[in-house]
Amino acid sequence: MAKGDLLSVREDVRVVDATLRDGGLCNDFYFTDKFVKDLYNNNVNAGVDYMEFGYKASKDMFDPEKFGQWKFCDDEDIRKVVGENKTPMKIAVMADVGRCNYKRDIRPKKESPVDLVRIATYINTIPVACDMIEHCHKLGYETSINIMAISKNRTEDICAALDIFGKTSVDTFYIVDSYGAFYPEQIRKTSQMYLEYANKYKKNVGIHAHNNQSLAFANTIDALQEGVSYLDATVMGMGRGAGNCQSELLIGFLKNPKYNVEPILAHIENHMMKLKEEGVKWGFDIPYILTGQQNSHPRSAIAFQKENRTDYRQLRLELLDME
Amino acid sequence: MAKGDLLSVREDVRVVDATLRDGGLCNDFYFTDKFVKDLYNNNVNAGVDYMEFGYKASKDMFDPEKFGQWKFCDDEDIRKVVGENKTPMKIAVMADVGRCNYKRDIRPKKESPVDLVRIATYINTIPVACDMIEHCHKLGYETSINIMAISKNRTEDICAALDIFGKTSVDTFYIVDSYGAFYPEQIRKTSQMYLEYANKYKKNVGIHAHNNQSLAFANTIDALQEGVSYLDATVMGMGRGAGNCQSELLIGFLKNPKYNVEPILAHIENHMMKLKEEGVKWGFDIPYILTGQQNSHPRSAIAFQKENRTDYRQLRLELLDME
Repeated sequence: MAKGDLLSVREDVRVVDATLRDGGLCNDFYFTDKFVKDLYNNNVNAGVDYMEFGYKASKDMFDPEKFGQWKFCDDEDIRKVVGENKTPMKIAVMADVGRCNYKRDIRPKKESPVDLVRIATYINTIPVACDMIEHCHKLGYETSINIMAISKNRTEDICAALDIFGKTSVDTFYIVDSYGAFYPEQIRKTSQMYLEYANKYKKNVGIHAHNNQSLAFANTIDALQEGVSYLDATVMGMGRGAGNCQSELLIGFLKNPKYNVEPILAHIENHMMKLKEEGVKWGFDIPYILTGQQNSHPRSAIAFQKENRTDYRQLRLELLDME
Repeated sequence: MAKGDLLSVREDVRVVDATLRDGGLCNDFYFTDKFVKDLYNNNVNAGVDYMEFGYKASKDMFDPEKFGQWKFCDDEDIRKVVGENKTPMKIAVMADVGRCNYKRDIRPKKESPVDLVRIATYINTIPVACDMIEHCHKLGYETSINIMAISKNRTEDICAALDIFGKTSVDTFYIVDSYGAFYPEQIRKTSQMYLEYANKYKKNVGIHAHNNQSLAFANTIDALQEGVSYLDATVMGMGRGAGNCQSELLIGFLKNPKYNVEPILAHIENHMMKLKEEGVKWGFDIPYILTGQQNSHPRSAIAFQKENRTDYRQLRLELLDME
């Protein structure tokens, strides 16, 4: 049963900008201060509901000399951009199971500019993810649980995971198509499955799509039609490999008058073209089609692009050999 | 009711390569003989069902000195490429209402290498289109009727048109999203509408999508799921403006073992990269999002791209002024 239509407004929609976080995977999180400040202002003006600043990675595991500050998202660094964040837009960070020291690095909400902690897990690390959810919840944060790479998981395992997470304090379940492998009809069915558990446990559902097969936007709005309400997007689709659902497509599509595509276009004009010129690589291209069609991790395609290769048939054979 | 599923084969599917025809709009149909010959062979090897060579434009209206030969598609020129065409792939050409001299230039099927004449019309030129259908049918050709730019037409007018064309000898109704303005849920409903008339009159339904909003592939496979069976695609999406559904996406998606994506990748490696390097412009980019979102003709975006402009906000204002 479709929720809403193409002419009216779904008040439950939340647009989540993930440009710094997923885009940071393309440039090791080296964004200029001006980029980040402008993105914050442009997102506020565009009506974006949440802006994700990056990861809460542990500085014990990752050398701060080798990454920009948004891999770590210290509260003070966010504070320098947002001040007291007296805007309707909330601030998000991502905490990866196994790559963060959450008990040390995530401080009580009342001391932090962060509103939402997005907990990224694989299906085999559910117990740690549950502990992270409850830790963050007790500290006063909203939380989401982002089960990654589910195109490789069995349906019954995903259902079991949703049943476990349903019993936690988490606020939002996220559908994450890490490999850009899902076709719209699969996303519609997956949305229905997530929504069934979400309705049972009074959670929201979100979607984070990848554009390997040029389906990120289509999958996002099809999920929306099914009832999914938290919608990830990035400016110009900036994100690992083929990138994500593009903010300019999504915000231009949404009918709520609070959304406005013009500040997103401003960010593209003022910043994104420059990143491309500087050689930062992301976005839909032939090699990602091949990994997407095979439901494979995009790493082979990313390496292929980095080496400026164009022997697509050879890549296809290499991918077949990896199965 | 969905037809088929993601794992099995729909025997009614026909892939129609429109690279020379829609792609020719990007380079005035100046393809090298080697490009055309290789495309023919690669399409045959990829399992493509129809290859469209170009337009049957009138040489009285268009100066042959200003266009490559595929704007005119003389039988002899096609014959030089396909010989007796002893392959399972059929040959198509497009005849535009008002831009061809069909009574003079379309010769009897038994003298021609062409199998299918695709008749392109706007909704206000139906009587001529009907005459062209019956003319071509009597000469022995398969025909399709491609009603263009229907995102600007009223539903009741489209229904009336389908009811008229249903009574002709035409074989296939084509959904044509000239402005890349349709969202998947609209394409699903439009497909159902076309199929209702097609079932009544025993016709096939096809789809020709444009990629202005990065939805050409999604719309094509969603239409397929509804029961549409003639699927247009072009290599690397080559086509006017944002281009079309990409052959490499579509053929990689289809499960019938007769389809093989490798020859399409070969054509990309051997020819398409070179076209891009030579400066031939097409493909999804920001300006096409703006015309697609506004359901406008892409001409403003094409001019914007040609001038290498990047002032997207200004383009948006210009488009608003044109409404």
